[in-house]
Amino acid sequence: MTEPSQTTIEAAAARLAPYIRRTPVLRMAGVDLGLDIPLILKLELLQASGSFKPRGAFNRMLSVPVPEAGVVTASGGNHGAAVAYAARALGHRAEVFCPLPTPAAKTERIESYGAKLHRVGAAYDEARIASEAHAQKTGALLVHAYDQPEILAGQGTVGLELWQDAPEATHVLVATGGGGLIGGIAAWYADKGAQVISVEPEGCPALHHALAAGHPLPAPVGGLAADSLGAKQIGALSFAVARQHVAQAVLVPDAAIADAQRRLFSALRLVAEPGGAAALAALTSGAFIPPPGARVAVILCGSNTDPAKVA
Amino acid sequence: MTEPSQTTIEAAAARLAPYIRRTPVLRMAGVDLGLDIPLILKLELLQASGSFKPRGAFNRMLSVPVPEAGVVTASGGNHGAAVAYAARALGHRAEVFCPLPTPAAKTERIESYGAKLHRVGAAYDEARIASEAHAQKTGALLVHAYDQPEILAGQGTVGLELWQDAPEATHVLVATGGGGLIGGIAAWYADKGAQVISVEPEGCPALHHALAAGHPLPAPVGGLAADSLGAKQIGALSFAVARQHVAQAVLVPDAAIADAQRRLFSALRLVAEPGGAAALAALTSGAFIPPPGARVAVILCGSNTDPAKVA
Repeated sequence: MTEPSQTTIEAAAARLAPYIRRTPVLRMAGVDLGLDIPLILKLELLQASGSFKPRGAFNRMLSVPVPEAGVVTASGGNHGAAVAYAARALGHRAEVFCPLPTPAAKTERIESYGAKLHRVGAAYDEARIASEAHAQKTGALLVHAYDQPEILAGQGTVGLELWQDAPEATHVLVATGGGGLIGGIAAWYADKGAQVISVEPEGCPALHHALAAGHPLPAPVGGLAADSLGAKQIGALSFAVARQHVAQAVLVPDAAIADAQRRLFSALRLVAEPGGAAALAALTSGAFIPPPGARVAVILCGSNTDPAKVA
Repeated sequence: MTEPSQTTIEAAAARLAPYIRRTPVLRMAGVDLGLDIPLILKLELLQASGSFKPRGAFNRMLSVPVPEAGVVTASGGNHGAAVAYAARALGHRAEVFCPLPTPAAKTERIESYGAKLHRVGAAYDEARIASEAHAQKTGALLVHAYDQPEILAGQGTVGLELWQDAPEATHVLVATGGGGLIGGIAAWYADKGAQVISVEPEGCPALHHALAAGHPLPAPVGGLAADSLGAKQIGALSFAVARQHVAQAVLVPDAAIADAQRRLFSALRLVAEPGGAAALAALTSGAFIPPPGARVAVILCGSNTDPAKVA
C-alpha cells in the first residue's frame, strides 16, 4: 500500500481529464449563508454522477487491467453510481452491492448507468463483505470505495484543482467518510501551507475516533449522512495520510448538517446531500472557527438526494 | 437613451464587483445532457437572489442618486427579488409590484429581503403601470426590469465574464424576456467574433416578432416561462442592440423547456427555472443546430422555482 504523492495525483489528473468535469470554484461573501467571512466553494457536487467519486473510480479502472468479468464494488450509493458511470464510459460490466437503506436517488442512478445492483445488509460493511466474496468468485476487479492507492490519488485531484483555482485558500474543509477524499486532499496539500480540516457527523466519527486512539478502529455508523459518510472504520491508507497532514478533525451534529443544506438551497439553489453539506456545517455551526484573516475553502462534494428534503 | 458599450459594461463590472457573485463557468461533455458536443455553461443561476438580475439593479442604484423614498420596480419576480436584495445591501427602501401569478419562490424572496410587495394585475405590464404611478407619486427611483441603460450595462457583465472565462466560445445562447440580458450580452460581444443567439419560448416571442416586424410591438405572453420571460414588448434599447448584434432569434416549445430542466437536474443536480433552462432547450430541441466545430456557451440565468418541479 502506498500513500498518494503530488506525482501520483498529477498523473491521475492527466488520466482523468477526458472523463470527468473540472468542477468550478465560486467565491462569495458569506453573508447570504449567515457567515461574516468570504468563502471559496468548490462545487464538486456538480461532478458527473452527483459526487466526487468518479475521480477515484476512473483512476482505478484506468490504472489496473480490468478483466472480462468487469468490476465490482460496494457502496453506500455515491461510489456505486460513480463505478457504474465509469464502467459504462469505459465499456466494462459493473456490479454494485449497496446496503438496504441506500436512498432511491442513488440506487436509481446506479441502475440508470447500466450496472447490476445487489442490495445486501443493513450498512456498508455488510455490502463490502458481499462484494469481496463476489470478486473472489468471479475474478472481477474490486474497486474499493476508499482504501486503495488509485482511489486516494483520484480523489486527490479535487485538491489539485482547488489549489490551482483558489491558491489563496488557507483552510480547506472536507467531509470524511471512509477517508478517500480527505486522504487524497490532505496528501495534495501536504506541502502547500494550507490547513486541511476533516468534518464528520457526530453519528459517523471514524476518523475523529481513530486519530484520538492513534489507530483505525470500528466506530458508530448512524444519522443523517450515514449513506455517504457511514464507513465503519477509516481506511488504513487515509489514516496514514490524515495522521500526518490533517490539521483538525471536527464533529458536527445532524441538525447543523440539515441547516447547512437549507442555507445552500436558499442562498444558491444548490442541492447538497447531507454528506455534501457537512463541511459547510462545520462553519455555520461553529464547530470550526477560522482564525482572523483566514480564506476558507469548503468542498461541497455530493448532491444525490431528493430536492424536496432541502427546499 | 444610450445603448451600452464595452466601456459602460466594463465600468459596470467594476462598480458591481463588491456586491455580486462572479459566477463560474463549467465545461462538460454534452453526452450527459443528451448532446454530442462539448458545452460551456455559465452558471449565472447561482447568482445572488437566484438570477442575473442583481447586476442591473445594483448598477442602476450605484449610478443614479437614490432619493429618501427609495426605489420602486415592477417585475415577474426575479427582478423584484434582485431590486429588494440590492436595496437591502445599499440601505434603501424598496417597493416591488408583481402580477398575481408570480410564483411563491419569487414573492417569498422579495419579502425575505425586506421589500414591500404589491400584487397587481394578471401580467407584468399591469404591474409596470402601477409601479410607474407609484414612482410619480412618491418620487422613488424607478428601477426598470430591462429598458434602462444602466440595466443593460449591468446585465452585459454576464457577457464580459463569460468572454474572459471562456474565450473559445463561438456561439452564446441567451434566453430573452424584455431584453435586458440579451441586449447587454449582444452589446458586449458586438466586436468579439462570437454569435449571440436569442432563445424565447413560443409563448413569449417578443424579440422574435419584433425582429420580423422591424420594430418593437406587442406580443403574446403565456406558457411555462411567462413569469420570467413574459414581457409584452421588447425594450427599445434592447431592440436597437439586438437588431444589429443578435445573429439569430429562435423559439422553443414549453415541452422542450421542461425537458431541459429535467436534464439539468438529472445530469448536474442544478435547479433551473423555466426561463433559466430555455437557452439549453434551444440545443436539446434542435431549434438551434450549431455548425461543426462550434464551441457553444449556454447561459443558465435563473433558479427561482420549486425543485419538486424539476426532479
